[in-house]
Amino acid sequence: MSLSSETVAAFTKGTGDHQSLDQGWNILAEQVSLPTAVLSRQALQNNQAWMTEYAARTGVRLAPHGKTSMAPELFSLQLQSGSWAMSLATAPQVVAASLAGVSRIIMANQLVGKHNMQLIAGQLQKGLEFYCFVDSIDNANALNQYFQAHGLQLNVLLEIGVRGGRCGVRGIAQADALAEIITTLPALRLRGVAFYEGVIHGIDAPQQIRRFVGDIRTMALTWHKQKRFAEGEVILTGAGSAWYDLVAEQMDSNSLPQDMAVVIRPGCYLIHDTGIYQDAQAGVKSRSRMACDIQGDLVSSLQVWAYVQSVPEPGMAIIGLGKRDAAFDAGLPTPMLHYRPGDKAPVPTPAHWQLTRIMDQHAMLKISAEDKLTVGDILCFSTSHPCLTMDKWRYLGIVDADYRIRQLIQTCF
Amino acid sequence: MSLSSETVAAFTKGTGDHQSLDQGWNILAEQVSLPTAVLSRQALQNNQAWMTEYAARTGVRLAPHGKTSMAPELFSLQLQSGSWAMSLATAPQVVAASLAGVSRIIMANQLVGKHNMQLIAGQLQKGLEFYCFVDSIDNANALNQYFQAHGLQLNVLLEIGVRGGRCGVRGIAQADALAEIITTLPALRLRGVAFYEGVIHGIDAPQQIRRFVGDIRTMALTWHKQKRFAEGEVILTGAGSAWYDLVAEQMDSNSLPQDMAVVIRPGCYLIHDTGIYQDAQAGVKSRSRMACDIQGDLVSSLQVWAYVQSVPEPGMAIIGLGKRDAAFDAGLPTPMLHYRPGDKAPVPTPAHWQLTRIMDQHAMLKISAEDKLTVGDILCFSTSHPCLTMDKWRYLGIVDADYRIRQLIQTCF
Repeated sequence: MSLSSETVAAFTKGTGDHQSLDQGWNILAEQVSLPTAVLSRQALQNNQAWMTEYAARTGVRLAPHGKTSMAPELFSLQLQSGSWAMSLATAPQVVAASLAGVSRIIMANQLVGKHNMQLIAGQLQKGLEFYCFVDSIDNANALNQYFQAHGLQLNVLLEIGVRGGRCGVRGIAQADALAEIITTLPALRLRGVAFYEGVIHGIDAPQQIRRFVGDIRTMALTWHKQKRFAEGEVILTGAGSAWYDLVAEQMDSNSLPQDMAVVIRPGCYLIHDTGIYQDAQAGVKSRSRMACDIQGDLVSSLQVWAYVQSVPEPGMAIIGLGKRDAAFDAGLPTPMLHYRPGDKAPVPTPAHWQLTRIMDQHAMLKISAEDKLTVGDILCFSTSHPCLTMDKWRYLGIVDADYRIRQLIQTCF
Repeated sequence: MSLSSETVAAFTKGTGDHQSLDQGWNILAEQVSLPTAVLSRQALQNNQAWMTEYAARTGVRLAPHGKTSMAPELFSLQLQSGSWAMSLATAPQVVAASLAGVSRIIMANQLVGKHNMQLIAGQLQKGLEFYCFVDSIDNANALNQYFQAHGLQLNVLLEIGVRGGRCGVRGIAQADALAEIITTLPALRLRGVAFYEGVIHGIDAPQQIRRFVGDIRTMALTWHKQKRFAEGEVILTGAGSAWYDLVAEQMDSNSLPQDMAVVIRPGCYLIHDTGIYQDAQAGVKSRSRMACDIQGDLVSSLQVWAYVQSVPEPGMAIIGLGKRDAAFDAGLPTPMLHYRPGDKAPVPTPAHWQLTRIMDQHAMLKISAEDKLTVGDILCFSTSHPCLTMDKWRYLGIVDADYRIRQLIQTCF
């Protein structure tokens, strides 16, 4: 059932001779197979520093969503910079992070199903500090039954959603009713409230989000006064990578009681992109004075390098890069750099070079009939939506500014 | 850099307790974490038998495209049923298949780039019988230079494409000119002609494809008479999973010279689907008497099982299944079965249950307000476009008709 790690290394796309990694693999010298996906070390460090600073200034804690990268080495970077916890989406993801040494995890999702509960119970028994979302009586009862039978207690965060959105009870009255029940279940500890505002769309999304978050804050303060929460700090958690400024601002954590903490869960900030999350960050900067006051900004760290495979007719090049290699659900990859092996350095691509279509293993690049693009030339692309590029790669290189891969990191999808 | 195989097994989504696999994991008894993707053993065997019979009746050879599954266990099934070779798309894919024991491979693509050539050279030195496509003078020269320097000979198939399509020279005159050059390059052996008709679209696609394939056949026969091909059998290869009947029919392999072989490269037939390839196969049956004469038909073998995670408002259920788990580029997954743990058997889902949206880790299911769907219920989905579901899973279960996983197969993406 299992291939040896030597075998896995040998077929791993986008890597070089594994014996020579300690000397680095130069992408421009064609020391790796293309296509390859790599992350800029400098960009990762910049992005983590930026978000750490943002959290410090707004008094919120970070539980970065690890589902984006599923890369333990990146979890380490995030935790070493002071993130309070990691967020994950599924039980197997929690197991992967816990085995990699993450000791505090928010599963930003319902825990459903016998085997999934068993996976989490196994990590609780090893000492993992764990929180998951609950939004229904059925689920609360199922969790209570399972964990009580196993002599364990489970920290839960009551999830509140919006009509037409995703999970979460709809409205304060439903939340009240569910909280009432949870507090009667011996194996469950109601440790806070959770939400995900990223499903709110439309022109008045900022106003809707402010109101939504404000209502949750008020409710949580009421419950706090009523001593509805279990012993320990009360966790208020929301925020993806698009609206974290509104969540931080509206939660106003500095004016909350000492034993209440605001935890935000952005996932995409670390890798970032030149598509939907670049746009989202521009939105943050347009709204938040605090975000503008921080030096620098998030930058896209993910590069996908690929060969020109064919230039079969004027105005069209076929690139050796496909849906197997890069996200395509929120815009196609964007050409950034052009390099001809043997040249001194890559040069920026002209603005009119654009991908027009992507297939499983190929992409079509529109160029002009006069452009000098040759089979064997190398292009570097940036992407939109980091999550769906990351899960196409079992290993990604970490590159320095000289496009040399210095390290391979493993993903655990 | 590498996790141990125990660690990888522990975080592998969609599996059960690895110690107990020899007893089988019952999906309905919740012995695996959901979501899980599994393949029906019976459906795989049916599909392979059907396509083997089709190839036998039409006198074509099979080189199934392995990029779809990248699963060595499935390559074995395909080869043991008499497939002549496997097709693959990239150099790392070729390495994976070769390491898994596949001894004859068509890389249905150009081989571009120094490290990619190095990967192939390594397998040639180990005795792999290998063919790749060439469609440009630049690429032919680069290949000749690399393989000559390494004392190796490379079998190439000249690729012919269509205007506005993908790779391949455009038209017979260009093909003639390129063939002329290839025959002067000492490290290259022109072993045949290749094409991919799957990029031809539109209402008159069948007519266009017939003409395209017919022209290639005529050209190949001329080259054969002119003794342009290198020594050995001449390979004529085309056909994805949508138009293989037209290719087989038009190539009419029984009337070709003894030393010319037609090789078709469908990839999706083995796993099949209930979406675009189901439609394509209906097209085959509508055109081909030969296909209709074969007993039975291709059936979808891929099942994705997931939990109902939340039923937050009437008419809507949130399913624990996302872009991380299933293809979404050619239609969303289709609900097939509904099972409530403890029930005797799954029942077919009503036709009005349909996914309306998919996010990274969730999907939204439209139901009616009266439907009795509960958190913890299990749904089984079929999919459209097998390739992009397969590459989301490092291991997939092989299930028997009782929904028990009997074996795990590994993918090598």
